[in-house]
Amino acid sequence: MTYTPPKVWTWDSDSGGQFANINRPVSGPTKDVDLPVGRHPYQLYSLATPNGVKVTILFEELIEAGHPVEYDAWLIDIGEGDQFGSGFVDVNPNSKIPALFDRTDGANVRVFESGAILLHLAERHGAFLGADRPEMLSWLFWQMGSAPFLGGGFGHFYHYAPEKLEYPINRYAMEAKRQLDVLDKRLEDVEWVAGGDYTIADMAIWPWYGQVVLGRLYGDAATFLSVDDYPHVKAWAERIDARPAVRRGRMVNRNFGDDVSLKLPERHSRDDFA
Amino acid sequence: MTYTPPKVWTWDSDSGGQFANINRPVSGPTKDVDLPVGRHPYQLYSLATPNGVKVTILFEELIEAGHPVEYDAWLIDIGEGDQFGSGFVDVNPNSKIPALFDRTDGANVRVFESGAILLHLAERHGAFLGADRPEMLSWLFWQMGSAPFLGGGFGHFYHYAPEKLEYPINRYAMEAKRQLDVLDKRLEDVEWVAGGDYTIADMAIWPWYGQVVLGRLYGDAATFLSVDDYPHVKAWAERIDARPAVRRGRMVNRNFGDDVSLKLPERHSRDDFA
Repeated sequence: MTYTPPKVWTWDSDSGGQFANINRPVSGPTKDVDLPVGRHPYQLYSLATPNGVKVTILFEELIEAGHPVEYDAWLIDIGEGDQFGSGFVDVNPNSKIPALFDRTDGANVRVFESGAILLHLAERHGAFLGADRPEMLSWLFWQMGSAPFLGGGFGHFYHYAPEKLEYPINRYAMEAKRQLDVLDKRLEDVEWVAGGDYTIADMAIWPWYGQVVLGRLYGDAATFLSVDDYPHVKAWAERIDARPAVRRGRMVNRNFGDDVSLKLPERHSRDDFA
Repeated sequence: MTYTPPKVWTWDSDSGGQFANINRPVSGPTKDVDLPVGRHPYQLYSLATPNGVKVTILFEELIEAGHPVEYDAWLIDIGEGDQFGSGFVDVNPNSKIPALFDRTDGANVRVFESGAILLHLAERHGAFLGADRPEMLSWLFWQMGSAPFLGGGFGHFYHYAPEKLEYPINRYAMEAKRQLDVLDKRLEDVEWVAGGDYTIADMAIWPWYGQVVLGRLYGDAATFLSVDDYPHVKAWAERIDARPAVRRGRMVNRNFGDDVSLKLPERHSRDDFA
């Protein structure tokens, strides 16, 4: 069945699978909605997807390590289109979670993109940057450029797309396995991806690659991708998963899934986890 | 024609389109090849793809601005599998260009991923970081997380894939247009993506989004994506394209294309452009 693309693409809003209602070819707000603001210096607007939990894990790790950090975490339900509210678009014109307002200096500084937020917070508190900055930055950016092939590529075509298509599934399964192998060879040699220190690069990579290996993403993906081929990734993933801050970070802004004990749609205090 | 994925994915090395010979589900070297090393402090191993020219543009902008920077740029021909040589895998275990050895401190520090290299060099020389670091980081990381949908997604399925598939082309055309619209709305308000200063965020975004709008990527993609919808991106793209350092940056490590005057496969001196 041969398809010939038109000269000029036009939007058919009926196509698009499970996320058709939240994918559009234009940006900007669709409704006038202010963001709520709490009393803490950091105001996070997010959801407990892999990109979201990167940042809540860092916040909870900073608190666990004794840094004087407090934050309000507000739920952005992307299935409900909260990311298209005017207030959210002001903090992230790209309409993706997570997004942060940093009011620590009496200002109201926006930061968007999970990688930018991780680096911003780690630099501000001088923590989880590791001893080898070039190596840490290399792996932090490796995650940013690689995970769209795992999530937007493999996860979409294997699990979410309305129809199973052989070529895209093969393309992205191959790339997902290659990426897991890159990580496995690295973690055969070092304890943490940037070397001897647990850093924001681990916190960025774990929610995607760690959780695939732990069997938490995309249905039967762990079997399909033969994740037992990556024992060093698995050991690292389990080590991170056992950290108390990581469990708390996974809970924040979670309003989905079967495990009720993990659901904490909003977080405003250290007592909220009790 | 319904396709049912197997329980466990296995590699059929015959599938994969134009890049089938360079895509594999495993990482690591396939051959024993040392990297050449020149006399300058920075040794770059790259190719003039959009990710490659980000870094050569920054090097040439640093030189243009009077910073005491010198570099050797060596060609990594990815069509020939140079990225799978043992020496290259040592500098980037992910086998992607660009990759850098920084020998400025008498050490031999590796940096890989274009975004990490940009940040590493800009910080080392205190240049092109702009006055608003959170905003610059947000847009720098925005490029890293977004362009895989433009390049690995849209560019692949629209231009490179062995067969035209309607659903993936629609999916990625919609996302490419959304991203261009995000950028267009931003550049309606500010001269450079991070605000008032030309920064590494512009240098990261331009080779992808600027060059799509200039009609340089993926055949008839500029028509297909109706790039005239994005006049602010176009004006910004042309402004950057006119910079002498950008033209030189585009030349370095280029061994492909019809324009012979742009080809400079290796760069070892400022005189090489003459």
